[in-house]
Amino acid sequence: MNNFTFCNPTKIVFGKGSVGRLRNNIPGGSKVLLTYGGGSVQRNGIYDQVMAQLEGISVVPFGGIEANPDCSTVDRAIEVARQEGCNFVLAVGGGSVIDASKVIAMGVKAPMSSWEMVKNGYRGETLPLGVVLTVPATGSEMNAGAVLSNRALEEKFAITCHHPLFSILDPTYTYTLSSHQVACGVADVLMHILEQYLTTTGQSGVMDRMAEGVLLNLLDIAPSLMKGNTDYDVACEYMLSATLGLNYMLSMGVEQDWLTHYIGHELTALTGTTHGASLMLVLPAVMEEFRQEKGEKIVQLGRRVFGLTGLSEEATIGATIQAVEDFIHSLGLAASMKEGGISETVAEEVATRFEHRGGALGERGLGTPERIRNVIRRSMR
Amino acid sequence: MNNFTFCNPTKIVFGKGSVGRLRNNIPGGSKVLLTYGGGSVQRNGIYDQVMAQLEGISVVPFGGIEANPDCSTVDRAIEVARQEGCNFVLAVGGGSVIDASKVIAMGVKAPMSSWEMVKNGYRGETLPLGVVLTVPATGSEMNAGAVLSNRALEEKFAITCHHPLFSILDPTYTYTLSSHQVACGVADVLMHILEQYLTTTGQSGVMDRMAEGVLLNLLDIAPSLMKGNTDYDVACEYMLSATLGLNYMLSMGVEQDWLTHYIGHELTALTGTTHGASLMLVLPAVMEEFRQEKGEKIVQLGRRVFGLTGLSEEATIGATIQAVEDFIHSLGLAASMKEGGISETVAEEVATRFEHRGGALGERGLGTPERIRNVIRRSMR
Repeated sequence: MNNFTFCNPTKIVFGKGSVGRLRNNIPGGSKVLLTYGGGSVQRNGIYDQVMAQLEGISVVPFGGIEANPDCSTVDRAIEVARQEGCNFVLAVGGGSVIDASKVIAMGVKAPMSSWEMVKNGYRGETLPLGVVLTVPATGSEMNAGAVLSNRALEEKFAITCHHPLFSILDPTYTYTLSSHQVACGVADVLMHILEQYLTTTGQSGVMDRMAEGVLLNLLDIAPSLMKGNTDYDVACEYMLSATLGLNYMLSMGVEQDWLTHYIGHELTALTGTTHGASLMLVLPAVMEEFRQEKGEKIVQLGRRVFGLTGLSEEATIGATIQAVEDFIHSLGLAASMKEGGISETVAEEVATRFEHRGGALGERGLGTPERIRNVIRRSMR
Repeated sequence: MNNFTFCNPTKIVFGKGSVGRLRNNIPGGSKVLLTYGGGSVQRNGIYDQVMAQLEGISVVPFGGIEANPDCSTVDRAIEVARQEGCNFVLAVGGGSVIDASKVIAMGVKAPMSSWEMVKNGYRGETLPLGVVLTVPATGSEMNAGAVLSNRALEEKFAITCHHPLFSILDPTYTYTLSSHQVACGVADVLMHILEQYLTTTGQSGVMDRMAEGVLLNLLDIAPSLMKGNTDYDVACEYMLSATLGLNYMLSMGVEQDWLTHYIGHELTALTGTTHGASLMLVLPAVMEEFRQEKGEKIVQLGRRVFGLTGLSEEATIGATIQAVEDFIHSLGLAASMKEGGISETVAEEVATRFEHRGGALGERGLGTPERIRNVIRRSMR
């Protein structure tokens, strides 16, 4: 096991009606920048529930944060927060709104634009941030990461900010999500766990078992979730699994990969593909390309999570990749760039970008530009 | 799933040599009350490693904290901390030292004795607390709980204090533990997970799967641990599992039991039995007594963790309880009060105490005085 440091101070307030505890969690004397997205929180009533909680507190609303939030939007919000003297940020939304809000909260006191923060790996003082989660997927509600896009440059990169002070998680908020949103959420959770898990075996037995446990349960609940029903217990499992998927409790002391995310980010930057869907376009090809290097772990995944038995190791690898593809299809998503309708031009552009940047990404530096080109070629077949 | 709040801000610094990061984690301007136990940390060199880190920092050593720390010891330490003006507590030891130190840290500013704090459920301001863990077992290094004893009254009770600010976890520190200490540590970890898991089924799939994951790994590593070898990876699994066993990541949104702990605490208070060993004296009898009420979960435990297949539900319950007993014996511990040499007088005193206190303990209030008497009767057979 590798040496590691773990600290996750975010307070999770979970369950039906937990928005009722929002007010008590906002520090006294707060002037709140209330950030949200394209208006769905107004249509489904969550905005009104939040505003009712904030009665008597000074609130500056900032709506219109788009999916894959753009640095220009974040810069505008920072300017508003500065002008209005906000000292607290409350994000009401999914991963895009939360990610943007992390950068906004840190950006208010930063001596540079948000895109410069991303490019420089800036990390400074932050305003406290609260979250009311509406889309389970990214785990952003309980980690310090954020991903920002720059549409002018067609780029998308991650930055480390600070953990939210608290996050309100009400599973009933998932009832109004479309089945595509749920599918992309489940895909994102799956991929987060695999980025932390699908490396070499034998690094940590307890982390492997815990990750496998969350995966087993995710496979269990997915069919019910995809039926679009509003079973409260299933919604709870979904929302909690998304948080556990990326609060880094599943990767203590082990290597992580994130190569699929790097490639997926480029596809989103170039085509606007939803984040969760973009990952599924790449995952099976990554497993194929690295079937030697990741072979033992793929076998372990197949046997422990997909219940494969009685096959040779080599056959288990193939069957596991097939099982992953089948699961992706069961979500109604495409399992390769070709299936997802990615053009040869875009595919070439992605491969070229990694060649120009150089360097090796992912666990053990396996993701050289050459191997990434192989992944893309496999995925376009 | 039940509504819940989760917040665990303790920073974990894990791995070989992590004591080297102790100094940077102690706030500037600290005057440190350094708490430790009976002197093993002086014999094995850990005390010197810690002191080397504290060079230039004002330190007041307070040694002699006994196993199952007594309120009188804690009161003496509080007095020393007040007289010396300490503003930081550093616990170097296992669960007993850490538990005592939590109460000391909170007691410095409390308007009552430590035993009054316990009896009144007092919770007030605390000095910050740092930990250097030497015995993996209680999980106290990453939770807010403490258990104090009162030898004058032959009593032992829990109190909720505050989370440590940080905990230094170096798995190599386990190399000098006796096999009995390791056995009691593993037993404690097992029991912590079961207190959170062995209730009704269907409360949370993801919590069940994660708890089962940690248990599966604990069963995997136990034989190697009991051989007394100094395999670093095994030591890592043991130390991390102990922390995960009771940082409440495994019980989000689910009922907990703790009945075995309540009974075990009485046995320790009356006979001095080591905590982990005391729990194993009670566990199989608790499973037998509540085999109807906990039946479905016992079957799930048997099938998913102990790998039992091809048996009826009823037969699986029996086989699972037998597997638990076998595991206890594999640790060199006794699996009933009779095996553990508990006298009829002590057994009667424990049963009588619960009758005098009245009320129902454990999940769903199943632990009435009558049922606790049944547990004790089964365990004395």
